[in-house]
Amino acid sequence: MRPQIVLFGDSLTAQSFGSGGWGAALADTYSRKADVVVRGYGGYNSRWALFLLHHIFPLVCADIPKPPIVVTIFFGANDAAILGRTSERQHVPLEEFKNNLKKMVNHLKECSPTTLVILITPPPVDEEGRNEYARSLYGDEARELPERTNEVTGLYATQCLELAKEMGLLAIDLWSKLQETEGWQKKFLRDGLHLTPEGNAIVHQELEKVLNETSVSAAKLPLDFPHHSKIDGKNPEKAFEYLSL
Amino acid sequence: MRPQIVLFGDSLTAQSFGSGGWGAALADTYSRKADVVVRGYGGYNSRWALFLLHHIFPLVCADIPKPPIVVTIFFGANDAAILGRTSERQHVPLEEFKNNLKKMVNHLKECSPTTLVILITPPPVDEEGRNEYARSLYGDEARELPERTNEVTGLYATQCLELAKEMGLLAIDLWSKLQETEGWQKKFLRDGLHLTPEGNAIVHQELEKVLNETSVSAAKLPLDFPHHSKIDGKNPEKAFEYLSL
Repeated sequence: MRPQIVLFGDSLTAQSFGSGGWGAALADTYSRKADVVVRGYGGYNSRWALFLLHHIFPLVCADIPKPPIVVTIFFGANDAAILGRTSERQHVPLEEFKNNLKKMVNHLKECSPTTLVILITPPPVDEEGRNEYARSLYGDEARELPERTNEVTGLYATQCLELAKEMGLLAIDLWSKLQETEGWQKKFLRDGLHLTPEGNAIVHQELEKVLNETSVSAAKLPLDFPHHSKIDGKNPEKAFEYLSL
Repeated sequence: MRPQIVLFGDSLTAQSFGSGGWGAALADTYSRKADVVVRGYGGYNSRWALFLLHHIFPLVCADIPKPPIVVTIFFGANDAAILGRTSERQHVPLEEFKNNLKKMVNHLKECSPTTLVILITPPPVDEEGRNEYARSLYGDEARELPERTNEVTGLYATQCLELAKEMGLLAIDLWSKLQETEGWQKKFLRDGLHLTPEGNAIVHQELEKVLNETSVSAAKLPLDFPHHSKIDGKNPEKAFEYLSL
């Protein structure tokens, strides 16, 4: 059975197989080496995701004898919705957010100590972009105060990075990384929150950077079957003999 | 365990998770409903692919208790390489090609009679595009005669469609479909053989059309877990109670 890379997160993960998406790009990088499996739940925060954890990653499961080699955990964008504003339903307090991530990591480590866990912080928020998006949906009825702010989301990103440090995990500081580029607001975000193809490319690039330093980089994993150039057109059996040994 | 859709084929399948790829688009369509698994082997013809068949689709396998709900079989582009020209190593005679496809289908039916098998014909060949591509690689050393022709590839497409008719299978006539559009040579093919994002979009669109008429259309499959709008922010447990029953 092919090794699996599981992407666990909210809409930023769910949409990662859209056009130019970072999940599809990762699947392409690991072509013939590992399957990339999306477990993305639009609108979910870390609190709700905990209800799914044991179902997506069962401790003992006859169906999935091999645990995933890599799991990305990418929450926080919804947790950071601000209390008293339109998306407050999704809000999760800062301390609980960190603790929820910790529960996810501990569970994954219990499933398999060898699984590589990579935390991804939420991306920055372009408040103006969020406002424009709200106006495009609701016109004059749109709320006046943004339901997320970049500053507050930054606090969630920091908690995520602190947890990674405490637990010795790999992490991608997407919140900071995207803001390094001038014009990140429109270049990387399409509605102030979700990623453009360029934003997706950064996630893919950062993930590859992190993975390339590990034992499960695409370069280090073997191809599943012979490359076609190794097959002798006149005697193809030879290239596949090893499969029946 | 999530239902699986397996894409079995050559480079046209292997590259289906590249930017704008039809495989990634299908995965997006089936988001939270089915996993799309790529089993694409660049350069392979149907003869070589037979060596992989029992390994990719084992008859009895503890690892994969549920057979895939859909398998696409997409070969022929390499089989159609012409004898006596530069890619003759990949050539498979017309009759054998049809027979190889038949073996694949019979094997899949033996694995699981309920699996929906969809045959996809090779796309048309733009001979001029192939020549330009060869010159871009080899300059004046490039071969003079195209290693594939549209006419010959069309014969392989016809065999594929005939088999589908004989066995009562769903099929996509990509060879004809792409040629319906003026300027298909450059619009849909990037090197005379492989698909542009626009060409990929047609494969995705045709697949959706075929799948939408079946019991495994994305619309008919259930979401894996509750949609976030069904979760009560004040009492989230309720939405997930059914999972512990």
